[in-house]
Amino acid sequence: MKGLFISIEGGDGAGKTTQIAALQQWLTSVGREVVVTREPGGTELGVAIREALLHSGEVSPRAEALLYAADRAHHVASLVRPALDRGAVVISDRYLDSSVAYQGAARSLGKEEVRQLSLWATDGLVPQLTVLLDVPVAVGASRVGGERDRIESAGLEFHEAVRAEFLQLAAAEPERWVVVDGTLPIDEVTARVREAVRARLLDADGVATEVDTLP
Amino acid sequence: MKGLFISIEGGDGAGKTTQIAALQQWLTSVGREVVVTREPGGTELGVAIREALLHSGEVSPRAEALLYAADRAHHVASLVRPALDRGAVVISDRYLDSSVAYQGAARSLGKEEVRQLSLWATDGLVPQLTVLLDVPVAVGASRVGGERDRIESAGLEFHEAVRAEFLQLAAAEPERWVVVDGTLPIDEVTARVREAVRARLLDADGVATEVDTLP
Repeated sequence: MKGLFISIEGGDGAGKTTQIAALQQWLTSVGREVVVTREPGGTELGVAIREALLHSGEVSPRAEALLYAADRAHHVASLVRPALDRGAVVISDRYLDSSVAYQGAARSLGKEEVRQLSLWATDGLVPQLTVLLDVPVAVGASRVGGERDRIESAGLEFHEAVRAEFLQLAAAEPERWVVVDGTLPIDEVTARVREAVRARLLDADGVATEVDTLP
Repeated sequence: MKGLFISIEGGDGAGKTTQIAALQQWLTSVGREVVVTREPGGTELGVAIREALLHSGEVSPRAEALLYAADRAHHVASLVRPALDRGAVVISDRYLDSSVAYQGAARSLGKEEVRQLSLWATDGLVPQLTVLLDVPVAVGASRVGGERDRIESAGLEFHEAVRAEFLQLAAAEPERWVVVDGTLPIDEVTARVREAVRARLLDADGVATEVDTLP
């Protein structure tokens, strides 16, 4: 049984947390070791990096990109790769595509440079499956409720641009990405995410495993 | 009057601190604004990054390189470039060549990758003058006295390799580097460093400044 690396992408309010919990529960129920993690901040160093960013006043765009890349490098080396080596399914709440999409929308640095930086940081580790939970920005904003200010403060236009960047990334690599309409009923979203993961598990493990007979 | 960016490189015990103080005093006496800084840790973010590195257990080589690059990016954007724009002389105690030389000796990552990372971090800012204070490792070790353990613990062989890397870098870019024999009497080293800086100030300001008539 080999490991499987999945990233879940999407804007605020897209339903990432809910869907990751459902996916984790299903995978655990079928006997897989599941490691759920998030960026930034999934490790002790990641927490320290977040603290450094929060308490250092204005940080230049390049310094910020490098700090996120450092967090990712450490996250991959210390947590993701060892788990994959054990055969676990690793689910990352955001990964390198978030850096590229947010940078693409912000336009302060080149998207391709940011992608290359992430690839260098991770020594080329790209997820086997990336699920984009796609919702219109207004829907996401209405869902985050009390945190709505956070979205609105950055501007709806910015979040529309992030959404468009995610959709572009998905279109450019259709073999890696699965785009799920996040406005569907939660159970329907869960079923579609599960279907995408099931297909990759079959690819990874071969058809003769228990996975293909499970609900 | 334009700014001048100088880095001072060399192993522990080479005399960097002493020579930087002498250079700062001379430049100030001839009426230049001088900014002395060091890597890593010349900024608030740099201090936070050092703390993060010290308290996060084992950090992967790529994460470490990215953190140093982030420190450098912030250092350059928030301190070095603004000072150069004001016309100041900036003296940095170590800069990107230290990353390249130490990485070259450690051999965990490619030297050229580390150099490219630093160049991206700084948006291509390279010193107009880099002074290598070159001393045999045994001489440096005997000078650092109480700190001798630090050098010996990393191994004399490693420090010999660092010294060789610095000399190689200097040989590859002779128009930027000036190598000064750090075993000469302190005053003689100071005079040679000053001569190198004087020549660059003339280049930067033109011959009709006060600098060429000074002691």
